[in-house]
Amino acid sequence: MPGAGDGQPVSADFFDVARRQRACRGFRPDPVDDDTLARLLETATRAPSAENTQPWVFVVVRHPERRAAIGALTARAWDQGGRAHSEGRLAPALLEDVERGAIGGVADAPVLVVVCGDARLTVAAALGPSVYPAVQNLLLAATAVGLGSALTTLPLVFGSELAALVELPEGVTPFAVVPLGWPARVYGPSRRRPLSDTAFREVYGAPWAGAGGL
Amino acid sequence: MPGAGDGQPVSADFFDVARRQRACRGFRPDPVDDDTLARLLETATRAPSAENTQPWVFVVVRHPERRAAIGALTARAWDQGGRAHSEGRLAPALLEDVERGAIGGVADAPVLVVVCGDARLTVAAALGPSVYPAVQNLLLAATAVGLGSALTTLPLVFGSELAALVELPEGVTPFAVVPLGWPARVYGPSRRRPLSDTAFREVYGAPWAGAGGL
Repeated sequence: MPGAGDGQPVSADFFDVARRQRACRGFRPDPVDDDTLARLLETATRAPSAENTQPWVFVVVRHPERRAAIGALTARAWDQGGRAHSEGRLAPALLEDVERGAIGGVADAPVLVVVCGDARLTVAAALGPSVYPAVQNLLLAATAVGLGSALTTLPLVFGSELAALVELPEGVTPFAVVPLGWPARVYGPSRRRPLSDTAFREVYGAPWAGAGGL
Repeated sequence: MPGAGDGQPVSADFFDVARRQRACRGFRPDPVDDDTLARLLETATRAPSAENTQPWVFVVVRHPERRAAIGALTARAWDQGGRAHSEGRLAPALLEDVERGAIGGVADAPVLVVVCGDARLTVAAALGPSVYPAVQNLLLAATAVGLGSALTTLPLVFGSELAALVELPEGVTPFAVVPLGWPARVYGPSRRRPLSDTAFREVYGAPWAGAGGL
């Protein structure tokens, strides 16, 4: 039973799943079966897309050498700019977690899904708004069954090398690498800025709450 | 009770919500209350973001004149290129639905959420991967409570005019306009290309299913 491995009951209530979603950067080696993966990928394809063109592509990587090669790209991107960018921006504990993920933890996941956009199906500007909602569905579906996951973009720094590793044709480019596996540790609930910081009424800066409404 | 208005029971099971999500472009005028909106927006902020910078901004527009102004931008974008682009690409029924939405249906929603990215919080390249997952959470949350919604980008053709309408400061730019309201009609389940078209094993083009695995 998915999720039973960590001894925790898993709820599939959408609002609960959304609250439980966390970036997981450390995985147990236990495999993820094809049926579970197919369920997750099918759910990803339920996302909306520009003109319903569905320009997403999922390359499911399990082979240890290919995962290691993607991991090496990620570690290189971290060494050649990622760490320097994040130092001083991230709290020490998060920086340490991100670093552990970048230099090996992410590639240790038994499955890496290279999520791509296919520019042969729609205009380039429509790819992000079409591919990232599908990525989010994939992450939520993973959370719903108790799998750990994350949206990583660090390996895109070497996008053409990543494309070569999974043999993408002309016009198909990587948008994210999503590790999937059983989480190595239990995560607490996510923390977020309050809505008063990010939601406004009618115009930017006008308080969302307590202002009445139409 | 949310969703009770259309007489249909509403399930919040994540996989069911994902399957029910459809782009809604026609709305009833009934209002959407603040508590429901706050729940949807709070759920949107549960999405992942680059370095957990949470660079999303939600401007909730209810005022009829401002909604009409956003609707006018959308209709202009449709007239000045949108229709020409979509004609011949979309099936007649979908083209008609998109056109009805573009020339007024979307702006008829009682709420338009202008979802923006704040480049003061992260690098520009990280905004799409950070904002669109939050948009998808917003759409799924709407679906979970029975509200209609859609991810529209057509008004972004006139992004600086849209920014002016909701008084965005320098560095904050619109990424989507999401109409929210009770749907004018019942939608059937979404249709998608089969996984065999979009999911591959190890490298692009290698059949996902039936190839065994590691």
